[in-house]
Amino acid sequence: MRAEGFRMEPLAADGLARTTRITTPHGAIETPIFMPVATFGAVRGIGVDELAAAGAGILLSNTYHLHERPGEAVVDALGGLHGFTGWQGPWLTDSGGFQITSLADRAKIDEQGVTFHSALDGRRRQLTPEGAIAIQEALGSDIAMVLDECLPVAKDDAERTDARAMESALERTLRWAARSQNARRKPEQAVFAIVQGGADERLRRRSAEATAALDFDGHAHGGLGLGERRDERRAAIRAAHDALPSDRPRYLMGLGRPIDLLDGIAEGVDLFDCVVPTRNGRHGLVYTSEGILHLRNARFERDSGPIDPECACPACRRHSRGYLRHLLKSGESLGARLASLHNLTYYLKLMKRAREAIATGDFALLHAEIEGLESRASGA
Amino acid sequence: MRAEGFRMEPLAADGLARTTRITTPHGAIETPIFMPVATFGAVRGIGVDELAAAGAGILLSNTYHLHERPGEAVVDALGGLHGFTGWQGPWLTDSGGFQITSLADRAKIDEQGVTFHSALDGRRRQLTPEGAIAIQEALGSDIAMVLDECLPVAKDDAERTDARAMESALERTLRWAARSQNARRKPEQAVFAIVQGGADERLRRRSAEATAALDFDGHAHGGLGLGERRDERRAAIRAAHDALPSDRPRYLMGLGRPIDLLDGIAEGVDLFDCVVPTRNGRHGLVYTSEGILHLRNARFERDSGPIDPECACPACRRHSRGYLRHLLKSGESLGARLASLHNLTYYLKLMKRAREAIATGDFALLHAEIEGLESRASGA
Repeated sequence: MRAEGFRMEPLAADGLARTTRITTPHGAIETPIFMPVATFGAVRGIGVDELAAAGAGILLSNTYHLHERPGEAVVDALGGLHGFTGWQGPWLTDSGGFQITSLADRAKIDEQGVTFHSALDGRRRQLTPEGAIAIQEALGSDIAMVLDECLPVAKDDAERTDARAMESALERTLRWAARSQNARRKPEQAVFAIVQGGADERLRRRSAEATAALDFDGHAHGGLGLGERRDERRAAIRAAHDALPSDRPRYLMGLGRPIDLLDGIAEGVDLFDCVVPTRNGRHGLVYTSEGILHLRNARFERDSGPIDPECACPACRRHSRGYLRHLLKSGESLGARLASLHNLTYYLKLMKRAREAIATGDFALLHAEIEGLESRASGA
Repeated sequence: MRAEGFRMEPLAADGLARTTRITTPHGAIETPIFMPVATFGAVRGIGVDELAAAGAGILLSNTYHLHERPGEAVVDALGGLHGFTGWQGPWLTDSGGFQITSLADRAKIDEQGVTFHSALDGRRRQLTPEGAIAIQEALGSDIAMVLDECLPVAKDDAERTDARAMESALERTLRWAARSQNARRKPEQAVFAIVQGGADERLRRRSAEATAALDFDGHAHGGLGLGERRDERRAAIRAAHDALPSDRPRYLMGLGRPIDLLDGIAEGVDLFDCVVPTRNGRHGLVYTSEGILHLRNARFERDSGPIDPECACPACRRHSRGYLRHLLKSGESLGARLASLHNLTYYLKLMKRAREAIATGDFALLHAEIEGLESRASGA
């Protein structure tokens, strides 16, 4: 099954990097694009008008969190995610599997689904592939994600190389994906399947081939950003892309730093999400055209300049590094809000620059520029 | 000494209620007016553009907090309160005395000043009347307040009626006021003195008479809102006003509920400040044209209407009670921010309505309307 009213047109390519236009029932977006994370239906501390002004095109919300509070029935009664939150552009929802595995108490996975104890009320609940689709249909997102089997994050190398567990999760994820396809009742909602296989190229390719055969509206890379090297990750993404239809969106889930986004774009990824810019902002770590700044540092105490002279966000237009440092040090929530908004603006503008660079054939230059900032930040 | 470039013109009167225009070095405001509280140089979670859009004309900041963090030298180096915060309209600063008495550790008062242990680093510090003026001159506020002797809040009726302690504090406050006048070095900064005397009309009148003789730019009512009845407070204010020159601003410090503001206006008060609208907003208590709502209440779970259909603030224009309830219940800071901004909008609009009602001779009607909402809220 494919969604009605959901389509992707190619716009330009530069090597494997590409720009596309994705049309959803709530408007079109151009890719590559970054999706700010609105866990409970709000990007922490930031309003929908500010997100639009910062250049956001599509938001991501977390199914598990909304299922727990206020519940999908309430969101549905208040007009779905669009009416509920006031963000009238496209929404993507994750399936909740990753959140349950990492947040809920005593999560247990069997063929039926994931059984867990609610972090909210301690009650035992089960999330199945069919249930995850039904919840997301009630939430009314434009793009839903299938439930996948997420392996716990490896604690050591011995766990990491347990290929049998990874294969088993991969096969179960495929069976769940097939059940998810059968469970769909809402023709206007796109559903993306999730490719697994860790950093193992062979497994990634196999997962991608079998997933492609299920004919979803788009595909995501799951289980990356868990400790693999950048070149390992790129190889894994490339192996999957070789087996996925190129006429559908590709989404790299949960990553990450600016260089991670550029690496993904270089391999042809279209969609990204991550809490990094907002979480780092709350802690006073901000991204600039000259690299990362730690705003809480004493050297900014009397700094009258903006975070980044090249940025037009409200923090940079209005306020000095010295004032923002003071707000962050004093625990004034305006500081976290302004720094988060600055970082989102940086990420969204970086994606815009990527789209423009791809269109003009200059993507490698941009990639090298961000690589240089990254090396400087890590002291390399 | 009187400040240069600081003046008040009467605009209209209705009984004792009055509207005036106060001109400061950073622009003019019309009174009666409410000053949002920006303790550390920011109204909690709310940006300066939002405050302007909500109708704010003048902000209040806390000298004690800014003295502790980041220190007045840093604020001065970054352009004073105006450059530091980005709020280019008028600022009023309190003197720090009340904050020290209520927040700092082991505050001791003698003739010289207030000695305390910093809540930040535990170090012993002293604030004198001269020091309070010097700090506020460095902060660069348009209106500074003298240091007064604040009596600790009474714990029982026996304490409340200790007229000797009150007289002694009153006399010391007068001596400190005279020292404050002598300490002024910045001709463009207005300084207001503080009338004491609790709810005792005789003491209030005496304090006001002696204060008036010191020729300050304006006068404030201190030590009210500490448990006295509304009629007691009005009588105390009236007794002071009888002895104060009517051509200078009158400021009721730290109060309070909408009805407290209207009561003050009825007696001819011009300026108000209080943390009530922002603090209540953070807790989900919001003011509407039909009375107070507790947004966290279960009955708002699926309520698709705005907080107040008559309000044009961002929360009411964009969001439902149901969504705001969800944000507040989930601890999403956007909820506290939007509810605070709504309440500030309510307070600022109420002051605008008061100015208009005074101009048309309808102030008693507005006073009765807010009295009615208050009675309903208290179940009377």
